[in-house]
Amino acid sequence: MTSERQDELVVIALGGNALQRYGQRGTFEEQLENARVTAKQIVRLIRRGYRVVITHGNGPQVGAILLQQELASEQVPPMPLHACGAMSQGLIGYMIQQSLINELRAQGMEVPVATVITQVLVREDDPAFKNPTKFVGPWFSEEMAKKKMAEGWLMKYDVGKGWRRVVPSPDPIAQVEVEAIRRMVNSGIVVIASGGGGVPVVEKMGELRGVDAVIDKDLAGERLATLLGANLFVILTDVEKVALNYKKPNEVLLDVMNDEEAERYYREGHFPPGNMGPKVLASIRFVRNGGRMAIITKLDKLLEALDGKTGTRIVPK
Amino acid sequence: MTSERQDELVVIALGGNALQRYGQRGTFEEQLENARVTAKQIVRLIRRGYRVVITHGNGPQVGAILLQQELASEQVPPMPLHACGAMSQGLIGYMIQQSLINELRAQGMEVPVATVITQVLVREDDPAFKNPTKFVGPWFSEEMAKKKMAEGWLMKYDVGKGWRRVVPSPDPIAQVEVEAIRRMVNSGIVVIASGGGGVPVVEKMGELRGVDAVIDKDLAGERLATLLGANLFVILTDVEKVALNYKKPNEVLLDVMNDEEAERYYREGHFPPGNMGPKVLASIRFVRNGGRMAIITKLDKLLEALDGKTGTRIVPK
Repeated sequence: MTSERQDELVVIALGGNALQRYGQRGTFEEQLENARVTAKQIVRLIRRGYRVVITHGNGPQVGAILLQQELASEQVPPMPLHACGAMSQGLIGYMIQQSLINELRAQGMEVPVATVITQVLVREDDPAFKNPTKFVGPWFSEEMAKKKMAEGWLMKYDVGKGWRRVVPSPDPIAQVEVEAIRRMVNSGIVVIASGGGGVPVVEKMGELRGVDAVIDKDLAGERLATLLGANLFVILTDVEKVALNYKKPNEVLLDVMNDEEAERYYREGHFPPGNMGPKVLASIRFVRNGGRMAIITKLDKLLEALDGKTGTRIVPK
Repeated sequence: MTSERQDELVVIALGGNALQRYGQRGTFEEQLENARVTAKQIVRLIRRGYRVVITHGNGPQVGAILLQQELASEQVPPMPLHACGAMSQGLIGYMIQQSLINELRAQGMEVPVATVITQVLVREDDPAFKNPTKFVGPWFSEEMAKKKMAEGWLMKYDVGKGWRRVVPSPDPIAQVEVEAIRRMVNSGIVVIASGGGGVPVVEKMGELRGVDAVIDKDLAGERLATLLGANLFVILTDVEKVALNYKKPNEVLLDVMNDEEAERYYREGHFPPGNMGPKVLASIRFVRNGGRMAIITKLDKLLEALDGKTGTRIVPK
């Protein structure tokens, strides 16, 4: 499935803060402004001759869409979580795509940019389906939660906040649209894909079917980078470098680690699940699957990190 | 801008009923089932060797999304109409794309399919902006309508139903992503694009910016077909043929008309605005811009119509 490795091809995974920053309400104007800041950094890479594929999270956006489904549910049939994921891909893709096109044009570059609605295949027998762990959507009263559970949702009590739906977080296998994305990249298009980890689908009696689950966007990004044959996979987050003993007196910032070191730190519990954990895991997988280097850093250090001046590099042993 | 004309390339514009039929509530299951029926017909074309680009309406879907924005507006900042259009492209694209992939695979064909989030450029000085005519979104009480008008919306009274927002319906110039779509088509991808007429954008101080407007999906489809150099443009609707004196005792069903005849009938008022009018207008424009033939018919007659056995053909004089 893997193409020949491409040195100039970079897959970039944007963190949630690429569009909605802490404390913001998430208006369109706020998100678009953040997308513009992100686009400026990415266009610097394109100028340098890198071919770029972008993936992104969708936490705040799909949270808003899910709440809207609930609050309007008496008047409009709510869409299932997987379909809400596709809606969030449209919304976020639009903002990033428009910002990239504007920034490219401002610099006199006419490079085609396109967002692809992306499904990501997961295994129907993935153990995650037996142990849903991921909170999604709004909080409910106990009474409403009981009604939802009777309708088939699994819900858990989120301490101090109320009842909330939990869904599985299965491991991604592959982007269903990877061949389309490959051809787009090869024809010179900057592609935005696999947003929010992709719309999760299973194969059931030979057919793809959406399932209510949440795929980690960095693990899905690894699949995309590996299947496209990218040599570089960059995960952007809110810290410049990965740390051991994060925020403790003995904190150590890491410049580089090989996959074995990374795995040892991971097992020792240095990287919390739902935060740095999946980023390090995705990086380990990427270099073990043939990638030359994964980088974890923050947005405004993107180019410096690619030049080897900052960020945390994860390399094969 | 126009490529060499391509005989095997067909742009298909799906009517609203491709996903939501009269009387349906618009649940995900209903819409997906309709998408499957549509996909079966389109795959028959792909089997025949046609290369296919699909565009579609979004009326019921964006209506639902707009209502959800309103009903949740105290808790979640509502997205503007143009961003809701991008969400509907994600949602509808996902359903059509998954259905096409499933049907192609069932027939042993591995053809890549991808939905592209699409912006459509309109002129900032389009006269439509001075005379908004298109009703969108939910109905409001007079009190709420006054509040909305104070915030900048234009609203009109929709007889018997309440106050409703009206937005401009400007003429489409071009799909911003047309070069990406062209490259995708050339590399063998079945593309779904320009959904709901596209996300309307204007160029303001050199930058693209979303505007709250609604672009007719058939007129936008003509732009896509013409700019891609398709020789065939098929508009699917709920009638098999275009009629003169529609539903009157002297009704005449048309097999073929040239662009001059079509224009005369159009001016005589045979084709109501918001229904058959823009379909005929889009067809006239298509053949005047170099297209070989436009066809207006219904979904289950698609292949027969391409074979010249039914539907209404619009040809150059």
